[in-house]
Amino acid sequence: MKKIKIGLLGLGQIGSGVYRILTRKKSLLQKKSGVSFEIEKIAVKSPGKKRAVSVPSKLLTRDAMSVAKNGRADCVIELVGGVRPAKDFVLAALKSGKDVITANKALLAECGEEIFKIASRYGRRVFFEASVGGGIPVIKALREGLVANEIQSVLGIINGTSNYILTRMTHDYLEFGQALAQAQREGYAEPDPSLDIDGIDSAHKLAILASLAFEEPVRLRDIACEGIRAIDQNDISFANQFGYSIKLLAIAKKTAEGLEARVQPTLLSKDHILSKVDGAYNAILFRADEVGDMLLYGKGAGSKPTASAVVSDLVDMAQGRPDKKTNPWLTKRRLKIKSGSSIQSRYYLRFSVIDKPKVLARISGILGDHGVSISDVIQTERKVGNVVPLIMLTHHAGEGAVQDAVKTIDRLPVIKGKSHRIRIED
Amino acid sequence: MKKIKIGLLGLGQIGSGVYRILTRKKSLLQKKSGVSFEIEKIAVKSPGKKRAVSVPSKLLTRDAMSVAKNGRADCVIELVGGVRPAKDFVLAALKSGKDVITANKALLAECGEEIFKIASRYGRRVFFEASVGGGIPVIKALREGLVANEIQSVLGIINGTSNYILTRMTHDYLEFGQALAQAQREGYAEPDPSLDIDGIDSAHKLAILASLAFEEPVRLRDIACEGIRAIDQNDISFANQFGYSIKLLAIAKKTAEGLEARVQPTLLSKDHILSKVDGAYNAILFRADEVGDMLLYGKGAGSKPTASAVVSDLVDMAQGRPDKKTNPWLTKRRLKIKSGSSIQSRYYLRFSVIDKPKVLARISGILGDHGVSISDVIQTERKVGNVVPLIMLTHHAGEGAVQDAVKTIDRLPVIKGKSHRIRIED
Repeated sequence: MKKIKIGLLGLGQIGSGVYRILTRKKSLLQKKSGVSFEIEKIAVKSPGKKRAVSVPSKLLTRDAMSVAKNGRADCVIELVGGVRPAKDFVLAALKSGKDVITANKALLAECGEEIFKIASRYGRRVFFEASVGGGIPVIKALREGLVANEIQSVLGIINGTSNYILTRMTHDYLEFGQALAQAQREGYAEPDPSLDIDGIDSAHKLAILASLAFEEPVRLRDIACEGIRAIDQNDISFANQFGYSIKLLAIAKKTAEGLEARVQPTLLSKDHILSKVDGAYNAILFRADEVGDMLLYGKGAGSKPTASAVVSDLVDMAQGRPDKKTNPWLTKRRLKIKSGSSIQSRYYLRFSVIDKPKVLARISGILGDHGVSISDVIQTERKVGNVVPLIMLTHHAGEGAVQDAVKTIDRLPVIKGKSHRIRIED
Repeated sequence: MKKIKIGLLGLGQIGSGVYRILTRKKSLLQKKSGVSFEIEKIAVKSPGKKRAVSVPSKLLTRDAMSVAKNGRADCVIELVGGVRPAKDFVLAALKSGKDVITANKALLAECGEEIFKIASRYGRRVFFEASVGGGIPVIKALREGLVANEIQSVLGIINGTSNYILTRMTHDYLEFGQALAQAQREGYAEPDPSLDIDGIDSAHKLAILASLAFEEPVRLRDIACEGIRAIDQNDISFANQFGYSIKLLAIAKKTAEGLEARVQPTLLSKDHILSKVDGAYNAILFRADEVGDMLLYGKGAGSKPTASAVVSDLVDMAQGRPDKKTNPWLTKRRLKIKSGSSIQSRYYLRFSVIDKPKVLARISGILGDHGVSISDVIQTERKVGNVVPLIMLTHHAGEGAVQDAVKTIDRLPVIKGKSHRIRIED
């Protein structure tokens, strides 16, 4: 039987999951793949640390670079995370003739072009199913299942932490800070949650999905990114009254004016299939010319789902799948990025106003002057002289026009605090 | 560039879609696959017929067997449908050294073992992504994406016609006959709709999914099959009042007592993700030990989605993907089939009763005698002496006990018409 020797970099959540599957399901995997997988060496930061899996200490080393370069291994699984030093290990592995499997979205989003150039030069393959959507085979579905399609758009809920927080805010009426604290207690959020809640993790994943979908490198700086820190219970409950859920959505669309790529809190109609994606689940909705709308849904993170994706890559690699003929990161960039201000959308606007006669007329007048027309208004019970929220939904309007109007409105003396603008995705 | 010559059997909806993709997207597919696809010959019933695509008449022939055996083709795409004569063509193609791509679920469900035995003997591959879920890459996700998983259950809405009918009944309050007629007018149902509405098409697809999921041949006769003809507007609206949708569900579960496989109308809580799958859409929900719950959703039929799946198979085949090491249809059967009467479930029961004092007590007494306890009752406005529907939801009970109880109840003189029993899937 064919043997594949593996160098494993990292033995955290995902690494432990991979180790567990490769040892406990050894015979299942042999049967399914015709290959015997052997872990040659594992690089860890603290060999003495207590772990979820018990690993023979002779497999462990602190020297990740030696594992990356180890001549006895056929491939390296990189589960270190982050750009540095992970990138050095990946490049070293490729240069020493090994295929690489990685779950590292930051690395691919930020250095995809460099990594695939080296892989191509050394005739090696890089697999990365686990980098987006955890256990959901979204990369495989997109590159293989939809091979006959031109992709028109990708909409994704691809950060479980943010989605968990927004779900708790929606169903349990928690404020953002309470929901975040809850997520941290339950292990859904890191002690420093900024990568997740500021939308950066979603943007990393969207860069990968959009690159594959549109077959050209989409870079992090091409993606307008906004997180969920500014969402409060008012927004959640007013959106609900209008029939919407608020989701942190990653969006990439091909338009006549170029690529539109953004990560933003978004109002989604409760009829929209993505509005039903709750808790730590992820979902990705493709719109494509042949298949129409197609959705994949599942656990986007966690030890077992992500390890499942890593092992599926391992089997693909071991079975000698031919490498993809097209690689967006090896392609010359022709995509134009659509400027944010030219995006047309409906908007949810929340103003904090002093409740005085004619305030509504004044604000809607300014919006009208900018060509922004209003479809719905909620003005809560009137207490003249108090600060109250004033909520408006607009018809389709240009992002630039809405921005300008809100800037003007924010200068009115009756406005207290910064106004809040959220896109509506129809 | 590598060339793959194709013999195409059938130029109906799917065949026309495949022809269109292979001609209009020729350069896209060359770029993505590194292969040039050439259609060598197309077998059709009526070469003179007007079609959605215009095909050079020299490509057309009436002689399907000559296309199946044609020495100049590398592969045959079988889109004839049905068991005979499709099976003869597929076997002839395999025996003359060609790989086969098929969308034929009936053929695989009924003759999978024979077909894969011949394929294996002649060293050929059979691809069948288009046989389940149309454009959704569900076979690929299951065999490749979930390779590291043991599958615990498969739940699917895998017949678009039935789902369209149930959706129209639910949202537009149509009776079954009206919704069926509407489906026929809109091209969602055949003039003879029995394969779809009697659950047979779903059972074919479930046989394929369950065989792959549990890695042993699941045969059509292993699947308890019930269609949607008996569902009426009462059921839809009472289910709705209790917070449920009615869906034609294909279910396969591994249990301690063996495999449970059935196609049945089912009450699904409105919180269940499958209850949101409306219209002609399909969805398949896997529960697996590593990834947990994973759902795939999209268009399960139609020319373009199904052709998209056929072409993805073609690319996999042309790129020389190694064949799967495990094939359920080449595996010795060890699966025990769980007997229907031992299945435990909650039930929705609808009785047509003459409204008289003590009827409710009498019926619930008989259920109680059989160990079936009631969780909810709806008795509509009382008009003593009239026939009215009496609806009950039960707690978990054995299928056998419920059947026996209903049989006894149906013999009561106050019962008019056959009582109706629908499972509830929690």
